[in-house]
Amino acid sequence: MIYFNCDYNEGAHEKIMERLAQTNMEQTEGYGCDTYCRQARELILEKCQSKDAAVHFLVGGTQTNATVIAAALRTHQGVLAAQTAHINAHETGAIEAVGHKVLTLMSGNGKLTAEQVEEYYQAHISDDSFEHIVQPKMVYISQPTELGTLYTLAELEALSSVCRKNNLYLFVDGARLGYGLTAADNDVMLPDLARLSDVFYIGGTKVGALFGEAVVIMNPAIQEDFRYVIKQHGGMLAKGRLLGIQFLTLFEDDLYLKISEYANELAERIREVLYRKQIPFLVENRTNQIFPILPDEALAKLGEKYCYTYQQRMDAGHSAVRFCTSWATKKSAVEALCADLREILA
Amino acid sequence: MIYFNCDYNEGAHEKIMERLAQTNMEQTEGYGCDTYCRQARELILEKCQSKDAAVHFLVGGTQTNATVIAAALRTHQGVLAAQTAHINAHETGAIEAVGHKVLTLMSGNGKLTAEQVEEYYQAHISDDSFEHIVQPKMVYISQPTELGTLYTLAELEALSSVCRKNNLYLFVDGARLGYGLTAADNDVMLPDLARLSDVFYIGGTKVGALFGEAVVIMNPAIQEDFRYVIKQHGGMLAKGRLLGIQFLTLFEDDLYLKISEYANELAERIREVLYRKQIPFLVENRTNQIFPILPDEALAKLGEKYCYTYQQRMDAGHSAVRFCTSWATKKSAVEALCADLREILA
Amino acid sequence: MIYFNCDYNEGAHEKIMERLAQTNMEQTEGYGCDTYCRQARELILEKCQSKDAAVHFLVGGTQTNATVIAAALRTHQGVLAAQTAHINAHETGAIEAVGHKVLTLMSGNGKLTAEQVEEYYQAHISDDSFEHIVQPKMVYISQPTELGTLYTLAELEALSSVCRKNNLYLFVDGARLGYGLTAADNDVMLPDLARLSDVFYIGGTKVGALFGEAVVIMNPAIQEDFRYVIKQHGGMLAKGRLLGIQFLTLFEDDLYLKISEYANELAERIREVLYRKQIPFLVENRTNQIFPILPDEALAKLGEKYCYTYQQRMDAGHSAVRFCTSWATKKSAVEALCADLREILA
Amino acid sequence: MIYFNCDYNEGAHEKIMERLAQTNMEQTEGYGCDTYCRQARELILEKCQSKDAAVHFLVGGTQTNATVIAAALRTHQGVLAAQTAHINAHETGAIEAVGHKVLTLMSGNGKLTAEQVEEYYQAHISDDSFEHIVQPKMVYISQPTELGTLYTLAELEALSSVCRKNNLYLFVDGARLGYGLTAADNDVMLPDLARLSDVFYIGGTKVGALFGEAVVIMNPAIQEDFRYVIKQHGGMLAKGRLLGIQFLTLFEDDLYLKISEYANELAERIREVLYRKQIPFLVENRTNQIFPILPDEALAKLGEKYCYTYQQRMDAGHSAVRFCTSWATKKSAVEALCADLREILA
Repeated sequence: MIYFNCDYNEGAHEKIMERLAQTNMEQTEGYGCDTYCRQARELILEKCQSKDAAVHFLVGGTQTNATVIAAALRTHQGVLAAQTAHINAHETGAIEAVGHKVLTLMSGNGKLTAEQVEEYYQAHISDDSFEHIVQPKMVYISQPTELGTLYTLAELEALSSVCRKNNLYLFVDGARLGYGLTAADNDVMLPDLARLSDVFYIGGTKVGALFGEAVVIMNPAIQEDFRYVIKQHGGMLAKGRLLGIQFLTLFEDDLYLKISEYANELAERIREVLYRKQIPFLVENRTNQIFPILPDEALAKLGEKYCYTYQQRMDAGHSAVRFCTSWATKKSAVEALCADLREILA
Repeated sequence: MIYFNCDYNEGAHEKIMERLAQTNMEQTEGYGCDTYCRQARELILEKCQSKDAAVHFLVGGTQTNATVIAAALRTHQGVLAAQTAHINAHETGAIEAVGHKVLTLMSGNGKLTAEQVEEYYQAHISDDSFEHIVQPKMVYISQPTELGTLYTLAELEALSSVCRKNNLYLFVDGARLGYGLTAADNDVMLPDLARLSDVFYIGGTKVGALFGEAVVIMNPAIQEDFRYVIKQHGGMLAKGRLLGIQFLTLFEDDLYLKISEYANELAERIREVLYRKQIPFLVENRTNQIFPILPDEALAKLGEKYCYTYQQRMDAGHSAVRFCTSWATKKSAVEALCADLREILA
Repeated sequence: MIYFNCDYNEGAHEKIMERLAQTNMEQTEGYGCDTYCRQARELILEKCQSKDAAVHFLVGGTQTNATVIAAALRTHQGVLAAQTAHINAHETGAIEAVGHKVLTLMSGNGKLTAEQVEEYYQAHISDDSFEHIVQPKMVYISQPTELGTLYTLAELEALSSVCRKNNLYLFVDGARLGYGLTAADNDVMLPDLARLSDVFYIGGTKVGALFGEAVVIMNPAIQEDFRYVIKQHGGMLAKGRLLGIQFLTLFEDDLYLKISEYANELAERIREVLYRKQIPFLVENRTNQIFPILPDEALAKLGEKYCYTYQQRMDAGHSAVRFCTSWATKKSAVEALCADLREILA
Repeated sequence: MIYFNCDYNEGAHEKIMERLAQTNMEQTEGYGCDTYCRQARELILEKCQSKDAAVHFLVGGTQTNATVIAAALRTHQGVLAAQTAHINAHETGAIEAVGHKVLTLMSGNGKLTAEQVEEYYQAHISDDSFEHIVQPKMVYISQPTELGTLYTLAELEALSSVCRKNNLYLFVDGARLGYGLTAADNDVMLPDLARLSDVFYIGGTKVGALFGEAVVIMNPAIQEDFRYVIKQHGGMLAKGRLLGIQFLTLFEDDLYLKISEYANELAERIREVLYRKQIPFLVENRTNQIFPILPDEALAKLGEKYCYTYQQRMDAGHSAVRFCTSWATKKSAVEALCADLREILA
């Protein structure tokens, strides 16, 4: 079986494995206070062109989302998100478990617009019984989104502007950020995220690391006491250096970008075959996730050899599915898949 | 100004005020352990034809909803509700504040169907990543709904049946239950609620009491330790007898039903005028809330003399609004409104 | 049976009952936005000599404590309190249920000292692993305490000073505040509380009202959005005027102080008898709660006629108990008790 | 600097590093559903002599404690623990953050007794206002405790018996379990823990792994839906196999026990030197943590070369400190420390 179902089927990039082995018996401070974490923080700040940000390393995405939101919001405040947002759909209510409502907005492509946010905010403050409704205080977006789409710089600037005008935090989940930064149609870079958001994170779990998310906090109000909140929410890794070492390796020599670009290129090859077969897509995108709408019998055949993710039924004979590439995907696997797609969809 | 904006503008029915005055200087046990609470409990159980239920008295609806849900659910479980449900739309995230996600289903008339619940449940358990999604464990409905509509007995039986099949709790918010029990088209009585739900409550705040909701718990799993949960959530009134005295008065001589019927009849008179003027409604119903869609200029004129609730804009020139009657509405007020409606809508 | 077990056995002062009856059928805005609440707020601010405070009315003490603490603290922050504090010992974990640890300090008389707070704070910030420990951010005290004792003005000033130095909120639970303000040895008045605390409340439930606590918030950080938090925690009474009317009545003509003084005088009479019999006390105090240590056989005899609260066993033959007077205690009841004490303890 | 301050200064045992490297590019299912996790689970069940237990792998201890407690308790229930317990003292209120009060009992040596638990439980259920107090429902102990002490089998059986009689869960935190299982004076083995507790865990982070805790759940009530709770609390590692591989390696050939025994032996050597110098100890124990009470000037000298943990001041000239050995401690480091202790304490 060849796995295209997600982007975290393998371990870590070999350079990370080597560095972990090399440093294994060193004695260091715990809880992220070691020299590797310090170096990784500095390198990330440099890439973000932001000296005043705080950088913290956490183990996983759900943990990171809950920790950031718990740190940022008061009890009566909620977070606006697309109904497809990971925090709404795939975290077993982790946000509600820390007491906050996810205020969902409809989205066909996984993205929120500045207009939607503005409209929701204005409706809230002009409602006679606004105090009977959760106060919107944060906007959560993903870059790339859960559907592999990207915010353009113009869209992100518009969102950021609406948020600042209305005193809302903008939080960007970058669990797959590498695949976004290196997409063919991307124009949002790390310094843009640092400039336009209040807090965002750079995903490691899906982009070359064994695990790990690097949270970059721009807003001092969220920076304050953040380590207490990490500890309280079970995210403070005893051997914190494991995170520092991984991110240090990923950000030296731009390894993070190189391996992301590789994955995107493999995705483009698969997309190319599908385009030629005039296969429609659930959503158009250029990152490492591909969402074709395929005939059920073709899917059945593909399923004998490849593992993919079922998304949704489109009509009696067709379903949308997801194929993912990653930093670890083998070219031979993509070639095999392309060949089979050509044949099966003939 | 004459208030038709809600059903809790006045104090309590005069019989309640008298009884509170009479008993004022008696010394009783606190926290609902007094003789009035005991008598009220017995009377309610008799009306529900259910000896084994537990009855608890709380002060308000939001408090009651949060307390029941906190008592019933484990941390990873959520509650299915219409997107118009009070717990979703008007409680400032009280349910999320106790850690549970409100899983919303779309509804045009405020009601959920057995089919919707079944479909959601089946989709959940058949999802490959079901453990990454909040587990549906309770269905919350309101009788009457927030839009004044009613579940028929057949609909309630179907919902109850789906819930029992799938091991879901059925929770009925009866904040306006009196107006439902006595509606012209109602066929759901107290013993039906007791038989078909796991827990429901009988609203006092909007039906003749100063405040108070009587929670009737059928399911032993929710009965267990319920008083601890009331106390923890700030709902255990020190002078609990105030609740017992009010519900005892409401349920003696069927005062609760009589005053509800009175309010419904007044609502019917207003509806009658609107029907004759061929005014459309946001939703059809026969309880104490009326949701006409009126021309904006008519609303402006009415607004000089009457207080109503704005619901939503329907088109450039029309809006849906809400007029409420209650046990306390004066006939003269309704007559004045009817006359003005006839004239303004002429 | 004559009840001396607590100070909330009866209803409300007759003037309150009259005013509630008079205003019963008036139509007002809900949720505390009515004219009675406004007037009551203004009167309380005047008594506190503080124009800038916010005043909110809630139904009960546990609800008030949880709401204030939820509004004030971030997720990783806790509240320092005596181990005898109501929030630690008698609220079924309501504070923990909103996510905050009660950090207890030992106290023999129910009071915290400025030195204890300073010591705890310094120990926290100088601990190497301070981020692994809940951050102390609020100090909760009761005036009078749960043991009926009072902070002197000097003690309160010292506590306030330590709190301000260390950026800690000072929160004063005044569930029995009237009995403190009017105690023979009291020198802390309402303007002192307003000047020295960040938030405090004036208890109605135990001092003449059917129910109700008036929260006075001095600190703007806690004032912000407080009504959202009330609603979220189930404390926003639909017919909010019931609270406004009660506090307006209590603060007109200083009724609140007069009825409290009355209760204290009755307590002094009982204490006098006990002093003469050289009965020791669990704690010395001059408010409406009396904590004598009595022989068990005397308690058994008293128990045939009087209801009191058991506190704790002191030795093989003696127990500490509590007798409470209140605004509602009849002189004849106190006379009977005094006579019986004289006889039984002879 | 040589680190004796804790038992998690280094990476992982070399066999773990090798296995992680070997399997690095394999494609597996995520979230702990892979073959390595399955094998590790089976091996652990075999060692516990318990077929019906559930085994789950989490990343860290605070996360594990919060997850187990959130899964087990209803909202109004709390957990009894020594005041020195990790959940009380070093988790930034993680338990309170999931809504539960830690009910602390005093302990000089880190251990609870069956008598303490029985006494607390009886006091609770016989209190007139028991519903105003958090309901004790779980007993949390650590084996070894935070002070390195061990429960004997007889003590554990007594605790277990009291818990079962009173329907309390017994939860054993085994963050350092290996060092307990192999201590010279230990008589509690894995099958005993499985037989006597409702849930316990086997710590990896401090005993040879990069990270990881293996939770063994005996009680079906806690087993139910446990994976939902893991996910909700941010503990479900995407590349779950990292945990399976580590625990599989630790439990093959009893590596876990061998490396623990090694650490204990090194601790004994240090203890031996201290005994000979007639140094007193804060607490007597035979596991990998050593708590000598040393003169401050000796500590100052030691501090130039060795890193240890400060525990508490004992008198004007002496302090209690902690030295830890671990699976990774070098013999040469221990020899150096022993030599220096002999010299400095001469």
